[in-house]
Amino acid sequence: MSRTDDKLAAVRAAMTEQGAELVALGPGAHMHWVLGWHPHPDERLTLLAIGRDSAHFIVPSVNAEQAGANAGLPLITWRDEDGPEEALRTLAQKVGNVTQLVLDETMRTDFSLPLIRTFDRAEPVFADGLIGALRMIKDETELAALRSSAAVADRAMEAGFSAIRPGLTESQVAQAMRDSFAEEGAAVAFTLCASGPNGAFPHHATGDRVLEEGDAIVFDIGAGFGGYPSDITRMAAVGSLPEGYQEVHDVVERAWQAAAAAARPGVRAHEVDDAARKVITDAGYGEYFVHRTGHGLGLEVHEPPYLTSSSQTVLQEGMVFSIEPGIYIPGRFGIRLEDIVIMGAEGVEVLSSLPRAVRLAGDGA
Amino acid sequence: MSRTDDKLAAVRAAMTEQGAELVALGPGAHMHWVLGWHPHPDERLTLLAIGRDSAHFIVPSVNAEQAGANAGLPLITWRDEDGPEEALRTLAQKVGNVTQLVLDETMRTDFSLPLIRTFDRAEPVFADGLIGALRMIKDETELAALRSSAAVADRAMEAGFSAIRPGLTESQVAQAMRDSFAEEGAAVAFTLCASGPNGAFPHHATGDRVLEEGDAIVFDIGAGFGGYPSDITRMAAVGSLPEGYQEVHDVVERAWQAAAAAARPGVRAHEVDDAARKVITDAGYGEYFVHRTGHGLGLEVHEPPYLTSSSQTVLQEGMVFSIEPGIYIPGRFGIRLEDIVIMGAEGVEVLSSLPRAVRLAGDGA
Repeated sequence: MSRTDDKLAAVRAAMTEQGAELVALGPGAHMHWVLGWHPHPDERLTLLAIGRDSAHFIVPSVNAEQAGANAGLPLITWRDEDGPEEALRTLAQKVGNVTQLVLDETMRTDFSLPLIRTFDRAEPVFADGLIGALRMIKDETELAALRSSAAVADRAMEAGFSAIRPGLTESQVAQAMRDSFAEEGAAVAFTLCASGPNGAFPHHATGDRVLEEGDAIVFDIGAGFGGYPSDITRMAAVGSLPEGYQEVHDVVERAWQAAAAAARPGVRAHEVDDAARKVITDAGYGEYFVHRTGHGLGLEVHEPPYLTSSSQTVLQEGMVFSIEPGIYIPGRFGIRLEDIVIMGAEGVEVLSSLPRAVRLAGDGA
Repeated sequence: MSRTDDKLAAVRAAMTEQGAELVALGPGAHMHWVLGWHPHPDERLTLLAIGRDSAHFIVPSVNAEQAGANAGLPLITWRDEDGPEEALRTLAQKVGNVTQLVLDETMRTDFSLPLIRTFDRAEPVFADGLIGALRMIKDETELAALRSSAAVADRAMEAGFSAIRPGLTESQVAQAMRDSFAEEGAAVAFTLCASGPNGAFPHHATGDRVLEEGDAIVFDIGAGFGGYPSDITRMAAVGSLPEGYQEVHDVVERAWQAAAAAARPGVRAHEVDDAARKVITDAGYGEYFVHRTGHGLGLEVHEPPYLTSSSQTVLQEGMVFSIEPGIYIPGRFGIRLEDIVIMGAEGVEVLSSLPRAVRLAGDGA
C-alpha cells in the first residue's frame, strides 16, 4: 500500500466513524499530509475530494499535468473560460448522497461556499477534528524528517552563538543564522534575536539594537528542511551574565524538566502546562510566564496538540510538540528554553543535541 | 482626513451603490489596503468589519494591544477560553440589519461560516467586486512605492547581468540578484534565471544547469520593498546571441510596443492583449505565446486588472499592470519582455529605466 493509500484508509476510517461521506481539502497542510504534496495555492478552485470509496483531484486544466503527476488520483479539470461549477457538479454525481461534508477549515471562502451550495443538504463540519486529529500522530518518515530538520537548526544556532560580538546589531547576528540555514538548503522561517531588555518581549521583532557587554540574548529560530520545520530557543549572553540572570534561568530549566517529566502517553496536555507553570509560580515568577507551554509541530510549525492550561487533549505516542516555558521581566531580560520533543512510550525524546545552558559568547574566540 | 478614513469613505460609497450593509475582511491584502496594515494571519478569528457608519476590528485579546495601535478603530476582543461567538453577536448588535454581507473571498472558512451563521438573513457576496475594484486604482503614495520598488529591481537585474559567466549555474547567477535585493532591504519574492532551452518554460524552476557560451537567459525577478512588489523580465545572452534570436526578440519588442500603444483610459483590457497577440501571430509565432499579456500589480504581485483575451475590464488612469508578451520555442529559447506600467491620462508610464534590448554579458568585463 502506498503512503497515500495508507493515509486515505485512515481518513476513511475516521469518516465512517463520524458519519461523513465527503472530505474536501484545499491546497494546504491537510492536503499535503494525505498526498505528500500540494500545489501552490492561488485563487483558482483546487480540491482534494475524498469519498468513502473514491478520491478525486479537482484542478484548473492549466495545472492538470502537474496535478496528475503528483496527486496520482483521477482528475476533474475545469477551464478558466468555463469556471469550476461544472467540475463540482461532476463531483456530486460521483460521490452520491452527502449528509456530512468535512471542509478544510483553512480553505478560501470562494472555494468553500460553492462546495456548500453544491452539497446543500449536507451539514458542513471542519477537518481539524478529523484530519487534524490524524496528523497529530507522526509516522516514522515524519519523525525522521523532524530529527533532520532539528539538526540543521542546531547548527544554525551554533552559527548564531559564534556571531555574537559587542557592537553588532541584532539583525547582523540573525543574518549569520539565516546564512547557516541557507547554506544547508533550509528555507528560513524565523530567526529571532532579542537582546537585553528586548528579550522581555516574547515576539520581539529583530532589529537595530546594538549588542552590549552583559546582554542576555534570546535566539528563537526555525526553518523548513525536507518539508518539515524546526523550532528551537536558546539563551546566550555577551561576555558575562546580567545580574540575577542565572537564578531565573535555573527556574526556567526546572520548569522545562517538570513539563518533560509530566509528559507521558495518557496524560492530558494541560497537565504538562500545569507542571511547568507550578515551578515558575512557586518560584514567584508566575506573572512573567505569559504564554502556553508548547505547541505541536509537524507539517506546520504550530499545529495540535497545544499545551495550554485548559487543553484536554490526551497525549499519545508519536505526537511531537515543543516544551518552552519562559520568564519575561520587563526592562531587564527574558528567558525562554524551547525544545521539540517526540512523545515516546516511556517519555519524551528531545530532538536537539544542544544543552539548554546559557552560552557565554562574544569574546571573539 | 486620514488615509484610512479616505479608504473607508470609498468602501462605503461602493457599499451604498451595491446595497451592502457590512463588509468583513480577514488579515490579507484587502484589509491591508484599507488600514495600511494587517496582522499576521493565524487560526484565530480576526476581522475588519465595515458598516455603513461604523468600523470595528475583531481580534483575540492577546493581540488587542497591537491591533489597537495599528488599526485605530474600536476593538471587539475575545478570549481563547471563550471563543469568538460572543464577539460576532456584539458586531451584529452594532451594525443592525444586514441584507448583503460582503466577504473577503480569501478568508478562511472557519472565519466566514460563523459570520454567515451570525448574519443568516444576509446574502453573502465576495469582496473582489468591491474592494478589488477600488484597489485597481492606485493613489499617489502607492504609485511612489511602486516606483521605488521597481528601481530596486532594476539594480538587482544589473547585478544579475554582471554575474553571468560561462560555467556558473542558474542558481549561482540568481543568488547575485537575491543578494542585491537583500542588500537594499527588499524581501525577495522570486529570482528566475532560465538559461538556454530552459527559457522556453515560462515558469522554469531555476536550477543547476550550467551557463554556456551562446545561451539566451531569461531573468524574471521581483521583491517586496516598502510594502509593494516589483516584477520585471529582461533577456541576456552569454557572450553571443543564439542563432535566430534577434529576429524573435524584435517581434516580442514590437508586441510590447503595440500593447503599450493600445493601453489608454477607456480601452478594455482584452484590447491590449489583442494588440500584442496580433503582432506575434502575424509574425508566425502565435502558437508560442502561451500566456496572457499582463496582470495588475499592487499590494499583491498578481491582482486585477488581468490583460487576457477575454477581459472586459475598462482601463482607467491610476491602474498599474505588467505588459509582458513572450515567445517560447521548445528546445531553443524563450523570450519574454516584461515592464510594469502606470496607466496615465495620455498613455503608459514605464517604471523601469532599463532598456528592453538583450544584454550581452559574461565576458568577465
